[in-house]
Amino acid sequence: MKSNLIMLGHGSGGAMSHELIQHVFVKYFSNPELNIMGDSAVFATDQGYMAFTTDTFVVSPLFFPGGDIGKLAVAGTVNDLAVAGAIPKYLSTGFVIEEGFPVSLLEKIVISMSDEAAKAGISIVTGDTKVVAKGQCDQIYINTSGIGLVRQEAYQLTHGNRIRPGDKIIINGSIADHGMAIMSARNQLQIKAPILSDCASLNDLIHQAFQVGGIHFMRDPTRGGLATTAVEIAENKDFGIELYEQDIAVNDGVRGICEILGFDPLYVANEGKVVLIVAAEKADLMLATLKKHALGKESTIIGEITASHPGRVWLQTVIGGARIIDRITGELLPRIC
Amino acid sequence: MKSNLIMLGHGSGGAMSHELIQHVFVKYFSNPELNIMGDSAVFATDQGYMAFTTDTFVVSPLFFPGGDIGKLAVAGTVNDLAVAGAIPKYLSTGFVIEEGFPVSLLEKIVISMSDEAAKAGISIVTGDTKVVAKGQCDQIYINTSGIGLVRQEAYQLTHGNRIRPGDKIIINGSIADHGMAIMSARNQLQIKAPILSDCASLNDLIHQAFQVGGIHFMRDPTRGGLATTAVEIAENKDFGIELYEQDIAVNDGVRGICEILGFDPLYVANEGKVVLIVAAEKADLMLATLKKHALGKESTIIGEITASHPGRVWLQTVIGGARIIDRITGELLPRIC
Repeated sequence: MKSNLIMLGHGSGGAMSHELIQHVFVKYFSNPELNIMGDSAVFATDQGYMAFTTDTFVVSPLFFPGGDIGKLAVAGTVNDLAVAGAIPKYLSTGFVIEEGFPVSLLEKIVISMSDEAAKAGISIVTGDTKVVAKGQCDQIYINTSGIGLVRQEAYQLTHGNRIRPGDKIIINGSIADHGMAIMSARNQLQIKAPILSDCASLNDLIHQAFQVGGIHFMRDPTRGGLATTAVEIAENKDFGIELYEQDIAVNDGVRGICEILGFDPLYVANEGKVVLIVAAEKADLMLATLKKHALGKESTIIGEITASHPGRVWLQTVIGGARIIDRITGELLPRIC
Repeated sequence: MKSNLIMLGHGSGGAMSHELIQHVFVKYFSNPELNIMGDSAVFATDQGYMAFTTDTFVVSPLFFPGGDIGKLAVAGTVNDLAVAGAIPKYLSTGFVIEEGFPVSLLEKIVISMSDEAAKAGISIVTGDTKVVAKGQCDQIYINTSGIGLVRQEAYQLTHGNRIRPGDKIIINGSIADHGMAIMSARNQLQIKAPILSDCASLNDLIHQAFQVGGIHFMRDPTRGGLATTAVEIAENKDFGIELYEQDIAVNDGVRGICEILGFDPLYVANEGKVVLIVAAEKADLMLATLKKHALGKESTIIGEITASHPGRVWLQTVIGGARIIDRITGELLPRIC
């Protein structure tokens, strides 16, 4: 570890998070399921495979255009299960609440969780609540852990071993909406149209994608954004990734805020997006299928897997150049989720 | 809800926690698995039953005689699975860390988690880390969620339906050690012999108990202590509970601190104790079996299930009287686990 103290960047999803995970958590917790480093762990049971995942949500503000911490806490964990090829089944919730937090707000959050769980078809079956003194937490933090049943055809999907040069990379719409919705809510930016978080449970969309087949890998590009997800997919692999900047949608308002605040949308968190790596021959059908779904209308092919520059992510820019995409160090957007 | 604001007592495990759970969480999250209100949810899969549980640990101080937050976070969740009759299998960890927390302490905690997980035979398979700014959390909070496979003979054990008048109530040793270890560490009390937390994974002890059979119910008396556990077991049931004060062991040092600080050991948290409700004809063999185990040497029969005073817990006191045991309101020991 380069640092002796934990810094905000260690929770960013970028290079510092990676270092912390490798040098502390993987070092001591090492086991076959963990070492795959998927967003869900997948393990065998006597009759099939199960996925298991956990996430703690510390987003600020608690309520933002397009969602709130409750919706996010359910959708985020549902999505981690769904991208592992699992059908989300059971959810746990662990609350840490600051003394003095209004019960009415807690109730609003709980209703939002309940609504999103119903929408995603997952049952909240167990929970825990801790209350800490004023100043020992900022309002409320929520952990959700989830269990899902992995589709037979998705076994080892999280390993990334199915990815082949020529595969197409698809995303189900514009990037950076969630991160910029939070930033504009936090900074109370005066903008004409409020930026909406894309926060949504993607399991039904992904279910439709499985009907098409040819899925070689999936991940939801949350903390660290599309760029970090691409880097993680290619890292130490014998293939590279090429992304086409012109095909990656960024909403106008989002682009504006990114320019004002100095963010690269490629690194900004999404909470309702999935990156699919799909066999080339299935790409068109996949795109057509995704576009029929409310959460996939804006789907595009944004890149492909290459045999060249293995381990590396290249971005073909709109102005005709190409640049290497790397992890970012440090934290751009603390408490984005 | 009597209160408009969350108070420390809402995290106590006592009457206020109960009110919050019923009026907010159960109200909106209601489903068959949750409504059983066991420490683990148990659900059917195609080939058997699984248990799923979650707990967030906010204990202060992080290191205390007999354990630390890491050991506690693993053992606590292992125990919630074990008392559901499950064999603990997979664990998730979710960290919230305050900016500026020393990496060396994080490493110490992670090693402790790894050691306890190895001891309990559970794999830590997935995790998440969030870092919040200075002052937005007190050092480190850890959520652990766990999955276990329920023994066939333990199906519906968490429902409490097997409990019958005449059943014996057994505990595997002295009470209130954990809570008073934390209190004495926190207050830096000068005492001759330090009070050790009883923090331990009980799954192996409970495994031995299953070899005897006749287990009608189990629970680990954590927050709220033995008294609250007994109240929860008897509540709204057609049986009562009688506890014999003279058979409930309290270590001398613990009793001393309780007297100094004004605590009733019956309400003080344990982290290495299990309350077993056992068929009368199996009680002696159960006791003998538990006593052979390192974590059960001091096991005693501390009470029985009665047909009289249904729904109520009575304590036969050492001075020959009897008193009703009820939930306590409010928080005696914030951040005990």
